[in-house]
Amino acid sequence: MIGAHGNVGTCVVAGAAGIARGLFDHTGLVTGAPEFDRLGLAPMGDLVFGGHEVRDGSFVHSAKDFGDRNGLLTPEIRRAVAKELRQADTEIRIGTARGMGSGVESTASDEALAAAPLAERRERIQDDLLDFKRRGKLDDVVVVNLASTEPTPADQSALASLAAFNDAVERDDGERVPCSVLYAMAAMESGFPFVDFTPACATGTPLLAEAALRHGVPFMGRDGKTGETLVKTVLAPMFVARNFRVLSWEGFNMLGNNDGAVLREPGSLASKVRDKDEALRSILGDDGVHSTVRIDYVPSLADWKQAYDFIHFQGFLGARMQMHFNWQGCDSALAAPLVLDLVRMADLAHRRGEAGPMRHLACFFKAPVQVPEQDFPSQMNRLYRYVAGVHAEASSPRATGS
Amino acid sequence: MIGAHGNVGTCVVAGAAGIARGLFDHTGLVTGAPEFDRLGLAPMGDLVFGGHEVRDGSFVHSAKDFGDRNGLLTPEIRRAVAKELRQADTEIRIGTARGMGSGVESTASDEALAAAPLAERRERIQDDLLDFKRRGKLDDVVVVNLASTEPTPADQSALASLAAFNDAVERDDGERVPCSVLYAMAAMESGFPFVDFTPACATGTPLLAEAALRHGVPFMGRDGKTGETLVKTVLAPMFVARNFRVLSWEGFNMLGNNDGAVLREPGSLASKVRDKDEALRSILGDDGVHSTVRIDYVPSLADWKQAYDFIHFQGFLGARMQMHFNWQGCDSALAAPLVLDLVRMADLAHRRGEAGPMRHLACFFKAPVQVPEQDFPSQMNRLYRYVAGVHAEASSPRATGS
Amino acid sequence: MIGAHGNVGTCVVAGAAGIARGLFDHTGLVTGAPEFDRLGLAPMGDLVFGGHEVRDGSFVHSAKDFGDRNGLLTPEIRRAVAKELRQADTEIRIGTARGMGSGVESTASDEALAAAPLAERRERIQDDLLDFKRRGKLDDVVVVNLASTEPTPADQSALASLAAFNDAVERDDGERVPCSVLYAMAAMESGFPFVDFTPACATGTPLLAEAALRHGVPFMGRDGKTGETLVKTVLAPMFVARNFRVLSWEGFNMLGNNDGAVLREPGSLASKVRDKDEALRSILGDDGVHSTVRIDYVPSLADWKQAYDFIHFQGFLGARMQMHFNWQGCDSALAAPLVLDLVRMADLAHRRGEAGPMRHLACFFKAPVQVPEQDFPSQMNRLYRYVAGVHAEASSPRATGS
Amino acid sequence: MIGAHGNVGTCVVAGAAGIARGLFDHTGLVTGAPEFDRLGLAPMGDLVFGGHEVRDGSFVHSAKDFGDRNGLLTPEIRRAVAKELRQADTEIRIGTARGMGSGVESTASDEALAAAPLAERRERIQDDLLDFKRRGKLDDVVVVNLASTEPTPADQSALASLAAFNDAVERDDGERVPCSVLYAMAAMESGFPFVDFTPACATGTPLLAEAALRHGVPFMGRDGKTGETLVKTVLAPMFVARNFRVLSWEGFNMLGNNDGAVLREPGSLASKVRDKDEALRSILGDDGVHSTVRIDYVPSLADWKQAYDFIHFQGFLGARMQMHFNWQGCDSALAAPLVLDLVRMADLAHRRGEAGPMRHLACFFKAPVQVPEQDFPSQMNRLYRYVAGVHAEASSPRATGS
Repeated sequence: MIGAHGNVGTCVVAGAAGIARGLFDHTGLVTGAPEFDRLGLAPMGDLVFGGHEVRDGSFVHSAKDFGDRNGLLTPEIRRAVAKELRQADTEIRIGTARGMGSGVESTASDEALAAAPLAERRERIQDDLLDFKRRGKLDDVVVVNLASTEPTPADQSALASLAAFNDAVERDDGERVPCSVLYAMAAMESGFPFVDFTPACATGTPLLAEAALRHGVPFMGRDGKTGETLVKTVLAPMFVARNFRVLSWEGFNMLGNNDGAVLREPGSLASKVRDKDEALRSILGDDGVHSTVRIDYVPSLADWKQAYDFIHFQGFLGARMQMHFNWQGCDSALAAPLVLDLVRMADLAHRRGEAGPMRHLACFFKAPVQVPEQDFPSQMNRLYRYVAGVHAEASSPRATGS
Repeated sequence: MIGAHGNVGTCVVAGAAGIARGLFDHTGLVTGAPEFDRLGLAPMGDLVFGGHEVRDGSFVHSAKDFGDRNGLLTPEIRRAVAKELRQADTEIRIGTARGMGSGVESTASDEALAAAPLAERRERIQDDLLDFKRRGKLDDVVVVNLASTEPTPADQSALASLAAFNDAVERDDGERVPCSVLYAMAAMESGFPFVDFTPACATGTPLLAEAALRHGVPFMGRDGKTGETLVKTVLAPMFVARNFRVLSWEGFNMLGNNDGAVLREPGSLASKVRDKDEALRSILGDDGVHSTVRIDYVPSLADWKQAYDFIHFQGFLGARMQMHFNWQGCDSALAAPLVLDLVRMADLAHRRGEAGPMRHLACFFKAPVQVPEQDFPSQMNRLYRYVAGVHAEASSPRATGS
Repeated sequence: MIGAHGNVGTCVVAGAAGIARGLFDHTGLVTGAPEFDRLGLAPMGDLVFGGHEVRDGSFVHSAKDFGDRNGLLTPEIRRAVAKELRQADTEIRIGTARGMGSGVESTASDEALAAAPLAERRERIQDDLLDFKRRGKLDDVVVVNLASTEPTPADQSALASLAAFNDAVERDDGERVPCSVLYAMAAMESGFPFVDFTPACATGTPLLAEAALRHGVPFMGRDGKTGETLVKTVLAPMFVARNFRVLSWEGFNMLGNNDGAVLREPGSLASKVRDKDEALRSILGDDGVHSTVRIDYVPSLADWKQAYDFIHFQGFLGARMQMHFNWQGCDSALAAPLVLDLVRMADLAHRRGEAGPMRHLACFFKAPVQVPEQDFPSQMNRLYRYVAGVHAEASSPRATGS
Repeated sequence: MIGAHGNVGTCVVAGAAGIARGLFDHTGLVTGAPEFDRLGLAPMGDLVFGGHEVRDGSFVHSAKDFGDRNGLLTPEIRRAVAKELRQADTEIRIGTARGMGSGVESTASDEALAAAPLAERRERIQDDLLDFKRRGKLDDVVVVNLASTEPTPADQSALASLAAFNDAVERDDGERVPCSVLYAMAAMESGFPFVDFTPACATGTPLLAEAALRHGVPFMGRDGKTGETLVKTVLAPMFVARNFRVLSWEGFNMLGNNDGAVLREPGSLASKVRDKDEALRSILGDDGVHSTVRIDYVPSLADWKQAYDFIHFQGFLGARMQMHFNWQGCDSALAAPLVLDLVRMADLAHRRGEAGPMRHLACFFKAPVQVPEQDFPSQMNRLYRYVAGVHAEASSPRATGS
C-alpha cells in the first residue's frame, strides 16, 4: 500500500484482521457476497500487509487516532487486532513525497522529501517490493495506491509511452513524472499487479497500458468509487431511462479527514473534482446539464463524509421536478473493503494470466480505465459476467483437465 | 381509460395533444428515447382517447382544476388543446363504482353507483368498448385502468379461474368481483389489450393470465412505478451490490390530490402500501430489514408529491451509515407519459400477435405480473432486449418477407 | 426519579458523575451557561440520585446497554463513573406500573404490577421519599417523572380537585388515578418539588396547582422539549413574524429506544402527539394549517432520533415556498441535562420559598403549565427575566440582610 | 428604487398594485400583521414608484421575463396590473454603473457607464429625486437601494466623514466613492430617507450616520435578510440557549437569477458572503465554530433559491448531533414585501421626525447599522417595542396635542 498509514490503509489492516478473528462479518465487501464464494479468492487471513508511507507514525497510532475521532475501531477492537497492526508496521518503509503538492509535502518527513534522483527512487521501490515478497514468502504482491490526491502535471508527455517515461527518468525530470507513476512502473516492472485507488492522473495513460502488456500484469484504476459518486452513477441512469432532462446536478461534499485537508490545495482538488464530474456527464450526455462539485474541509466531521446532491430535472408537460439526497458515510470504512476486494480480484486475475486493464473491475472506480460505461448497474453486470466466466471455465473439462 | 377524468387521464389527453401540436417535446416519455424510434409505435397524433368515469365532470373542467392547483397546464396550454379535450369528452361514458370503497363512492354520481347486476355491467362495458372502436374506425383499443386505489376483496376465490369468475358474475356476487376485474375481463373478452396502472388486486391473479391466453391478448400491470418506488428500486440494488446490510428503510409520502384523499381509507391504503413495500423487500431479501411506508394526505401539495426516505445501513467495520432522499414530483406528470408509453407498447405487442403478460414492460410497474426481478436496471435491460429483438426481427429476411 | 433506570435516568446519573469528575464540561446544560453562574445552584457533585423503577435491572446494566447501542457512555466512561452508578443503584426501589398501558406493563416485574390499594401505594411512595432524604441527610428532594408515556384516562374527574382525588384514592379507583398523579401527590404531600418530564396528563390539572399551593411546593411540567418540538417552537415564530401563511407542517419522527416501543401503543402515542402538535398550533393559530405528527419505532436507531419536518408556506404574490429540516439527536443525551437543569432550578425555587407552577421554566416543556406562550424565544426571555430577578434580589440591601 | 427593473423592484411594483387591486392579500408583509394596523402607515395604493436603472428594459418586460421563468406573476396577474407597471416605467431614469464591478457593467447601457464626474452624477441624482417628488406631488420620497452586489472599495477613507467624502467627490476619485454612497448621499442631502437593501459597504460607515443627523433624515441597512440568513439567525439562538457547542455550520446556496450571475464575480461574492457569515458568528461567538458560506449560480433555478445548511453540534456526554435544513424560496417574492415594509416604516419615521439609523428595523437586515444583536427574536422585540411606543404616544394626551 502506497500511503499505508492513512485512514484507508489502517482500516484495511484492522478490518482484515478483525474478519480473520471473527470480530466482523463480510458486510461491505463486494467479494463477501455469495456470488464470489467459490472463485478461489485469497482468504482474508492469508493476506500480508506492508507498504510505503511519507509521514512518521504507525498503524497502532493511526488506529487509535482514527478510532478516537470516528467511533469505529474502538479500544476493544484495537486491542483484539493489536498484534496484526504491529506486524504490519514492521513492513512499512519510507515513501517518496516529492511533487505530491504542498498538502502532502507539509506533513512528510525529511527523508520522504529527500531529493534522490528518479532512477534511484524507482530502484528503491522495486527493492522494497521484492524484499517484501521474499521475506514473507508470498505467492504474489499487489501494489495499491492509497496516497493523497496528487496534482496533475501540466506536461504529460512522459506518460505517452515507455520510451518517453524512461527518457524522463533518466533526465531526472521530476516535473513530468508524478510519484504515482513511479510506483506503478516499479510494480509492473517487478511483475506485480497495480491498482490505483486515487485520482492520480497516470493510470489512464498509454504508458501504463503499454507497461502492463509488456510485463504481463493486470492493473486497474482510477479513483475508488465509494460514496456520492457511486450514488450518482446509480441514479443518473434512471433519469436517462425515463427520458427526463436533467437541468442541474449540484453536489456538495464535506469531510474532515486528511484527504479533505489535502484537497484544500487547488491542484489536488481539480484532479478529484474532474473524476467526480466526468462520471456524471458521461451518463447524462453533455446536453446542457449544469453541474457543480464542491468539496469542503469541515474538521469536525473527521472521516464521516456528508454529501448533499440537488438534482433539478424536467419531465412531461414541462414539469420541473427535484430530487435531493444526503449521504452520510465513513469514507475509510467505505473504501477499505473495496481495497481488499481489488487486491483479491487482482491476485485472481494475475493467477489466471490476465494482463492489461481489468475492465471487469470498472464498478470500483470513478474513472475506470478503458471502460466506456460509467453507470454502475452496467459495470456490475460486467463484474457478474466475469465471475460467471471464471466459474464456467472452472467447471469445464478443460479446466479440470488431465 | 377507466377513471378517465382524473389528473392522470387529463394529463394524458392534454399531453398527447400538446406533443402533437409541438407545444411539448418527448421529455418524460420512455418511448420518446432514440432507442424506440424505428419500432413502428403509433404516432402521438393518431391516438384517440375515451373511457369511463364515475364522477360528473369533463376534461375541460379537470384541466382547469389541475392547472390552477399545480402550475402545469397553464391557461395558454389549455387554450391550445381545448379542441382535443372537448373531443375526448364526447367519448366518456358513465363507469361503475360499486365496491370501490367509500372514498370513491362518496364522489361518484348516482348513475355510477346504480345497482345493475354484474353480468349487465360487464355487458355494458363491452358495448361501450366496441362502440368506441367502431365509431372511431380505430385499428385497436387498449384499455388502461387509472381508477383510484381499490380495496382488496377478502375472498379472492372468484379470481382463481375463468370458471370461478363466470360463476361469481352469474351469481351477481359483488363482494368477490372488484370493478377492476370486470373491466379487465370485458376488455379481454372484446379482444383488447389491458393495462392496469393501479394497485388493483386482480392483475396478478390466475384469472387474467388464463383469460389473456384464451382471448389472445397481451396485458400487464400492476401499479405504475412513477416516483418514490422507482427510486427505491434503483437504489436498493446498489446496497445489495456493495454487500451492505440495510437495517431500516423508512418512506414517508405526502400528497394532496384525489389519490391521496382516497388513500385515507384504510382498505385502499393497504393495497397501495403493499406494492410499495414488496418491491423493496424483494430486492433486499427479508433478512431483518425494518421498513415502513407512510402515505399522508396533505391538501396544500395538490398533485406535487413529497417523499422522504431514510435508509440506515451497515458496512465494513460495523459502521452504521445513512442515506436520505427527498423526491418532489408532480405525480400526474410522472404517470401520464408512462400511460402513453404503455398504450403504444401494448398496441405494438398486439399487432405482433403477443398474448399474456408483457413481461418486458415490468419496469413500468411496482408489482409486475410474472416477473421475479424488481430492480429497475434489470427491468430496463428486459425492455432493451425486447426492443432489440423487435429490431432484429424487422431486419431479418423472414421479417421482410418474400 | 420515577422510571430511574431508563436511558434518561441513566444518562442523568452518569453525566452528573462525569461532570463532577471532569470528564465532560457543562455543554448541553442550560444552567451551565454563564448567566446562571452566581445563582447558588447546587453543584453537580452534591446531587444524590435515587428513585423508583418497575423493571428489573440496574444503572450499571442500563449504562452498558445504552453505551453499546448508542456509542456514548463508552467503556472508558462507564469504568470512570462505575462507583456513582453502583451507589445510585442502592437507592432504587420498586415502582408501581398498574395502569401504565400494556407497553410498560409487559416489561414490568410482578412486584411492580402488584395490586396493592392506591392508598397503600401512595403511602409507600411517601415512605420511600422520606427515607431517601433521611438516610442521605439531604437538604431537599426533587421528584422527577421520567416514566414512559402513559395513556390519558378517559374520566379525569379525579384530577379536578384535592377532594375528588382523595375520594378516588379512598375508593381505590385505579381507572381515574394514573400513576403519575400518585407520584406527584406523594411528592407534594411530603413537601417536595415535583417535575413532570413526560406527557402525563395530570400536571396541567387543577389538582396539582391546588396541592402545590396547599403544601407550599413548586412544580412544573409537562413533557420535556428536547428536539423536534424545540425546533418547531423556534421556527414557527419566524413564520408568524414575517406574516407568512403556513399551509402544512408535517413532522415524521423515528426512534428505536424503549420510548419508541411504548409509543406503539395507541393510547400512549395519542398523549405524546397531542403535546407535540398543540405547541405548534398555539403559535401559528388555528387558521387552516394542516399538520401531522408521526412517531415510528425504528429499532436500528436505538436512542438516536431522526425527525423530518416539512413546512409548506405561502408568501407575497401567492408564492408557495418550502422549508425542510432533519434533526438527528440522541434523545437521552438531549433530555438528561434538562433534567439536571430542572432539578437545580426546582431546588433553588424551593429554597426561595416559591410555590405553584414554576412558569419561568416553560422553555423546558412542550406543554408548560399555566404559561400561554409556546414560542421558545419568549419562554427563554421568561427564564432570563427570572434569573435577573434573583440576581437583583441577591444584590439588593434587603437580600444581604442585616 | 436604485436598480428598479430587477426582479425585486418588479415584484415591488406588481405586488403593491396587486394588493391595491385586491388580487393578493397582505401575506408576506410584516407590516400587514395586525400589530401594525393603526400606525398610520401609508396605504399600499398611495405609493408611487420610480427610480434609476442601468440596463435597457421596462417593468412590463421584466414582469414577463420573471413570470415566464418563475411561475409567479402569471399572464392574468400581469394583465391586471399592466397599467401600474407602465405608469412606473415613465418614472425610471438612467442610473450610474461605473465601479459596480464587471458583472453589472457588462449588462449596463453606454449611457449608464458614461464617465461624467462624480459631482455631476450626484447632482443629476438629486435633480431626478426632486423632480420625481414635484411632478408626483408626493408627500415624501424614500430611496431604496436594490442594485446588484457591489465590490467593497479597498480604500474606505472617503467614507469616514462628510469632509472626506466631499473632498473625494471634488477630486472625482471614483476608486473611493462607490455608486451606493453617491445615491445615499444624494438622497440625504435632498432630505429623503435612505434604505440600503444590498450588501453595499457604505451603509455602516461614519459618513452616513453623520449625514443623516446633519440632514435630519432616518436611514437603515444593510442587506435584506430574506431567507437562509433569516433562518440562521432564528436557529442559532436556540443552540446558544441550550448551551450546545456548534462545531460547524456550513451553508450552500444556489440561485439562478441576475443576482446569482453577478455573484460569480469574486469581489461581489466577498461582500455578500461576509454579511451572511458575520450574522452567524455574532450570535454563536467566535469560539472555534467552523463555517462556510457558498453561493453557486444554477441557471435552471431562476429566482427560486435552494439553500442547504448543515449544523454539527455537541451536547451533553460529548454527543455529536446534527441538524440539516433546506430552504426553497422565491428570492424576489421574499424580498419585495420587505422593501414595501421598509418604505412604509421609513416614511413613518420621517414623519415622526426621527433621524439617524432606524435601529428598530434591524430585523430586516443581515448587517443592521448600529445594532449589536443579530438574533432575529431580539430584533423582532425591538420592532414590537417601537410599535408599542408609537401607539403609546398616539394615545397619550401629549401626542394628541392641544
